[in-house]
Amino acid sequence: MSQMSLHPIGVVRTQYTAREHTPVQSALNPDATGTAVLDERYTDALRELTGFDHVWLLTWLGREGDASEPALRQVPYLLQNARREIGIFATRGPRRPNPIGLSMVRLLAVEANVVRFSGVDLVDGTPLLDIKPWVAAFDRPSGNPRSGWFDEVDMPSGATPTSLRRDG
Amino acid sequence: MSQMSLHPIGVVRTQYTAREHTPVQSALNPDATGTAVLDERYTDALRELTGFDHVWLLTWLGREGDASEPALRQVPYLLQNARREIGIFATRGPRRPNPIGLSMVRLLAVEANVVRFSGVDLVDGTPLLDIKPWVAAFDRPSGNPRSGWFDEVDMPSGATPTSLRRDG
Repeated sequence: MSQMSLHPIGVVRTQYTAREHTPVQSALNPDATGTAVLDERYTDALRELTGFDHVWLLTWLGREGDASEPALRQVPYLLQNARREIGIFATRGPRRPNPIGLSMVRLLAVEANVVRFSGVDLVDGTPLLDIKPWVAAFDRPSGNPRSGWFDEVDMPSGATPTSLRRDG
Repeated sequence: MSQMSLHPIGVVRTQYTAREHTPVQSALNPDATGTAVLDERYTDALRELTGFDHVWLLTWLGREGDASEPALRQVPYLLQNARREIGIFATRGPRRPNPIGLSMVRLLAVEANVVRFSGVDLVDGTPLLDIKPWVAAFDRPSGNPRSGWFDEVDMPSGATPTSLRRDG
């Protein structure tokens, strides 16, 4: 197989400077806006993106100097008070074997190499790996699927790691 | 930032041996089944995954020995006949600056380190990078969002790159 190495295609700009104070999911922070600023050489790769209402941002969530393998079971931010451990592949947390973030955001505008969006769960400066269009036919299962432990928890608007530790 | 390198957490096993004959999206091939076989050391990381009806498979779609930068505009398989070029970030195609695949599949069972699923758009042997739960609150926007050029095209059941070139 090819070497599995990534390179940023750009950077995400938001109002948040620390993960501890950044909402844990874009859907819980739908009104905040951010921008994905692509390397200018990728401008042409955004052609026809404006026809989509939502896009996926794939991002790199690895932390500088942290090469340790993350714990296989973790207490998600949303379960801090219950102290319940969940397998990492059943969570959306950032500390994963391959720390790729997946954020669904609302597309506001594409202006040359800049994508404006609303719905922010990313720290300012997060490296951007990919943008994919959200496609109803592919990304929205029919019916009312179960979402595991998420179906049992409160998901307060704007919840951050810090607020979830403090509350309850 | 940390070194952006990935390592497989396992491998995807399917009935398909060539991309040209593999359905282009899992949603277009919902009844085919596959397995995600994780490295045994990750078994514990699957805890509580069975509560979810759908999961995301993040995969590595790079081809061996192909280090060339992909074209910024490409004709998607689904638009082969129209020969219409779309910016790669407005497509779901595999040839991207960072070739990370995103497949929503239906979870059938978790048995130790093996995840059985239905909905296959991956070639046998595809390296698996991550599994994330599909969460209605995060991944399903409200209303009836626009899906750009996908809203205008036929998406035949079981469509493959080869069938889409042949038809029409």
